[in-house]
Amino acid sequence: MSLDNVNHGELLALRDTLRSFAAARGWQAYHTPKNLVMALIVEAAELVEHFQWLSGEESLTLPAEKLTAVREEVADVLIYLIELADVLQIDLHAAARDKIARNALKYPAPD
Amino acid sequence: MSLDNVNHGELLALRDTLRSFAAARGWQAYHTPKNLVMALIVEAAELVEHFQWLSGEESLTLPAEKLTAVREEVADVLIYLIELADVLQIDLHAAARDKIARNALKYPAPD
Amino acid sequence: MSLDNVNHGELLALRDTLRSFAAARGWQAYHTPKNLVMALIVEAAELVEHFQWLSGEESLTLPAEKLTAVREEVADVLIYLIELADVLQIDLHAAARDKIARNALKYPAPD
Amino acid sequence: MSLDNVNHGELLALRDTLRSFAAARGWQAYHTPKNLVMALIVEAAELVEHFQWLSGEESLTLPAEKLTAVREEVADVLIYLIELADVLQIDLHAAARDKIARNALKYPAPD
Repeated sequence: MSLDNVNHGELLALRDTLRSFAAARGWQAYHTPKNLVMALIVEAAELVEHFQWLSGEESLTLPAEKLTAVREEVADVLIYLIELADVLQIDLHAAARDKIARNALKYPAPD
Repeated sequence: MSLDNVNHGELLALRDTLRSFAAARGWQAYHTPKNLVMALIVEAAELVEHFQWLSGEESLTLPAEKLTAVREEVADVLIYLIELADVLQIDLHAAARDKIARNALKYPAPD
Repeated sequence: MSLDNVNHGELLALRDTLRSFAAARGWQAYHTPKNLVMALIVEAAELVEHFQWLSGEESLTLPAEKLTAVREEVADVLIYLIELADVLQIDLHAAARDKIARNALKYPAPD
Repeated sequence: MSLDNVNHGELLALRDTLRSFAAARGWQAYHTPKNLVMALIVEAAELVEHFQWLSGEESLTLPAEKLTAVREEVADVLIYLIELADVLQIDLHAAARDKIARNALKYPAPD
C-alpha cells in the first residue's frame, strides 16, 4: 500500500474533535505551544514509568492490566501531540511522511 | 464530520512504512517497548527545548526556521509513538478515540 | 565564599544513606544506569506536571500545598541523580563544579 | 557517618555560585520555576538519550568517551535542580533528607 493512496482524514478528524472539546470547556487559552509541550512530556513520562524497572524482554509481554494502562498513556501522548500540531498549524501526517523520507536518505538500507 | 466515517488507514499506513523501514535496517531487535519509550521521551524533550525560554505568547508565533525544526521534532514523536504502539499491538487511533470518550465523561462540558 | 573551602561531604553522605537503603531492600539489581535515568526523568516530569498550566509569574508564587508537593518531587530528582552518579562512579559535586567552570568560558559575563 | 554531622555547605555553595553566574549575565528574568523545570527535563532527556539503545548490562560499562558526556549531563541536571530549588526557596538537602525518611516508613526494610 502506498502512503499516497490512503485517506488523510484520520488525524484531522481527531484534531477537529479535540478542537471542539477544548472550545466547549474554554481550555483554548491554556493551549499555548509552551504549555502543550509540557503536558506532552508529562504523558510521555507516565508511559516511561510503566517500563522503568522492567527488562527489555519483560517490556514485550505486559500483563493485561498494565497494557490497558499503557494504552491510555499512549492515547494521551497522541492527543497532546495533535493539539500541539494544531496550534502550530503543523500537518502532523505530512510532517511524519517528510521525516521518514529524510530518514531514508540519512540511514540508507543495506543492499 | 463524524469520527466513525473517516478512513482509518492513515496511521496504519505510517506503521507499515515504519515497520518495513526498521526491518530493512535490522533495527527490530532494538525496538523493545522499553527502548522505544526512552526514544519517545527524548524526542519530546527536544520539542520542549525549543520552548523552554519563551513566554507562552512567544511560543505561539515562532520564527520560520524554529517552526521548521519544531515540525521535525513533532514528526519524531509521532514516529516513535507509532512504533511503540506497533510492538505493543495497540491500535493508536482506537486508543485515542476511547480516551477522548472517557475524557468527555470525566470533564463534562458546561451547558 | 570560595567553592574550594567548603566541606564536600553533603552529597556523599546522601549517597551513602541511599546506598544502604537500596542494599537493605535488595534493590541494587534494579539500579542499572538505564533504569535509573528512566526513574529520574519520570520524577522530573512529575515536577513539570505541577507547572504545565501556570504562567511564568504564577509559577513563582505557589500555594503552600503545591509547594510542599513540589519540594518532594525536587527531592526525588536529587535522590535518583545521586543513585545514578553512584552506579556510574561519578563524583556529582566535582562534575557540577567542572561544568560551571566550562559554562563560564562558554558564556563569558559582559563587563 | 550520621547525616546530622556533615557540613551542609556543599549544595548551598553551588547555589551561591550559580546565583552570581545568572546575575552577572542578566539571566534571572528567565529563571522562573516554569522555565527551569523545562530546562531540567531537557537535560534529563539528554541523559536518557545516552542509554536508550543499550541493554541494562551495557549501561553499567560505558566507554570512556560516553561516560565523559554522561558526566556533563548529570552535572547539568544538578545545576538546574539547584537553580529551581533556589527560586522556590527550597532547601534541597533538607528536602532530600525528609524524603528519604518518608521512604523509609513507606518501604520498610525486611528483617
